[in-house]
Amino acid sequence: MNTYLIWLEWPEKCFRTSAEALSALRSLAPSGARIVRARSEKGFLKALPSATHVLTWHFRSEWFALAPRLRLLATPAAGRELVPKEGPPGVTIHFGGFHGGVMAESVLAMMLAWCRGVVAAERLGPWPKIALSGMCYRLAGTRAVILGYGRIGRAVGDRLSALGVEVAGITRRNASSLRAEAKRADWLVCALPSDTGTTDIVDARLIAALPRRCVVVNVGRGNAIDEQALADALKKGRIAAALLDVWKKEPLPADSPLAAADVPNVVRMPHSAAFHPGYVSDAIRELASEGLLE
Amino acid sequence: MNTYLIWLEWPEKCFRTSAEALSALRSLAPSGARIVRARSEKGFLKALPSATHVLTWHFRSEWFALAPRLRLLATPAAGRELVPKEGPPGVTIHFGGFHGGVMAESVLAMMLAWCRGVVAAERLGPWPKIALSGMCYRLAGTRAVILGYGRIGRAVGDRLSALGVEVAGITRRNASSLRAEAKRADWLVCALPSDTGTTDIVDARLIAALPRRCVVVNVGRGNAIDEQALADALKKGRIAAALLDVWKKEPLPADSPLAAADVPNVVRMPHSAAFHPGYVSDAIRELASEGLLE
Repeated sequence: MNTYLIWLEWPEKCFRTSAEALSALRSLAPSGARIVRARSEKGFLKALPSATHVLTWHFRSEWFALAPRLRLLATPAAGRELVPKEGPPGVTIHFGGFHGGVMAESVLAMMLAWCRGVVAAERLGPWPKIALSGMCYRLAGTRAVILGYGRIGRAVGDRLSALGVEVAGITRRNASSLRAEAKRADWLVCALPSDTGTTDIVDARLIAALPRRCVVVNVGRGNAIDEQALADALKKGRIAAALLDVWKKEPLPADSPLAAADVPNVVRMPHSAAFHPGYVSDAIRELASEGLLE
Repeated sequence: MNTYLIWLEWPEKCFRTSAEALSALRSLAPSGARIVRARSEKGFLKALPSATHVLTWHFRSEWFALAPRLRLLATPAAGRELVPKEGPPGVTIHFGGFHGGVMAESVLAMMLAWCRGVVAAERLGPWPKIALSGMCYRLAGTRAVILGYGRIGRAVGDRLSALGVEVAGITRRNASSLRAEAKRADWLVCALPSDTGTTDIVDARLIAALPRRCVVVNVGRGNAIDEQALADALKKGRIAAALLDVWKKEPLPADSPLAAADVPNVVRMPHSAAFHPGYVSDAIRELASEGLLE
């Protein structure tokens, strides 16, 4: 009999096992399956020997030895930082690939809140009509270069295209065109994982190639950006703004170059681009749709 | 010979005659046409006797008598407050109908900035990750009731549909369904003109029909909403939020019920939903596309 062990107890509310998620798992797992919810590492390790399927944020390589029946090790995370990328023979490792839709909404939210003046209205105080009349601009007709064109990057690109934005996606295959594309980017949107050798790909040199009107967006991982170079460019007005959900160090430290009060035009989000109440249920539905709950 | 008289000198930068707009007019008007830019009411009235085509924010009925050659009286405004709705025989009156795209971007901006936590991040200060993990939700899968389904309402509806929102448009014809639709609205988006008998259509009774999760949005005119009733509902948590670009009185007075600091979850925009640098050029291009510059 299959045993589904679910251990998702992070402090973020939408990242925890919810009643809705348990009920999704119950309805999608084979009938009669055993479902065990762990609330601590201790409880998780106690249940691990009987588990055939595990859904967790975190798994140490040495724990495989405690899980002789394990067939599926799944994490909702898209990032590959907290679960081993490979396991013993017979164990499928699965990273979440369902984030595109919600992440794309967050990218749109930041970009539109910026160009349509919602952020400025929050910052400028009562009735900033004259100021906004010289700041607001249209999203349609702009050009977005999306650095990292995997599932998340493409989900962003599809929605931007639907709203009239010209989109250029950069992958490993066409990486040599990045600099040329950067020169005519109204938006440089980073949607890169942390583990593909792209640390500081957005460096002083690439930033210097961007037009002054360009806005840098990051919803991938913070290592993609040289934060000191980005802060310097913002202070000098070399680019227009930075809309950032991820950072080199998280939580964003007060002494980060991008946390400084004299760096203008930064929208600071707390790595929340994927947050929504159905997050864990979506992760479970994705496993079911790929046949991984069998 | 045609004489095009353009008088657009409002304090809002993007609402003024720009070099780009004059050049658009020059290229779209018949060649050899005379183009006169007025910078004041006095200058406007001086040039009016020779004008065949007028583009203005403001026109008094008695001025028609000063304009014997007038064939077109056009305003970029969609609202019908500042230019007579009808003129003498032979004079076409034209109100702008080109605002849908930019207004829809502003509606999306406010809605996404709200549900994806951009507004909350601005308000909550450094690293509000835990708070946002219980607040953010997805736009896709929600239901928007659009009150006023003319050109602007439909432009909003089209883009919301493209992003996975279920849309119900309310017009005069199906106005009887408003209350029933309101009961299952995640968003009530008002895109009504001021002059169609819809003052206070969003009143205490309609607000009481909305679900607690509902967010009220207004980009039409402020008269559509009973502001005291909306403020009361927000204070009592009877609805989730209000994202407002237009107000009963503008600029929003400090003693407005919706300006009070104890009314939570209001995003206050300064009637800026249509702002963008190409605004006046778009107005001119619309006139040309409708053959009105002949």
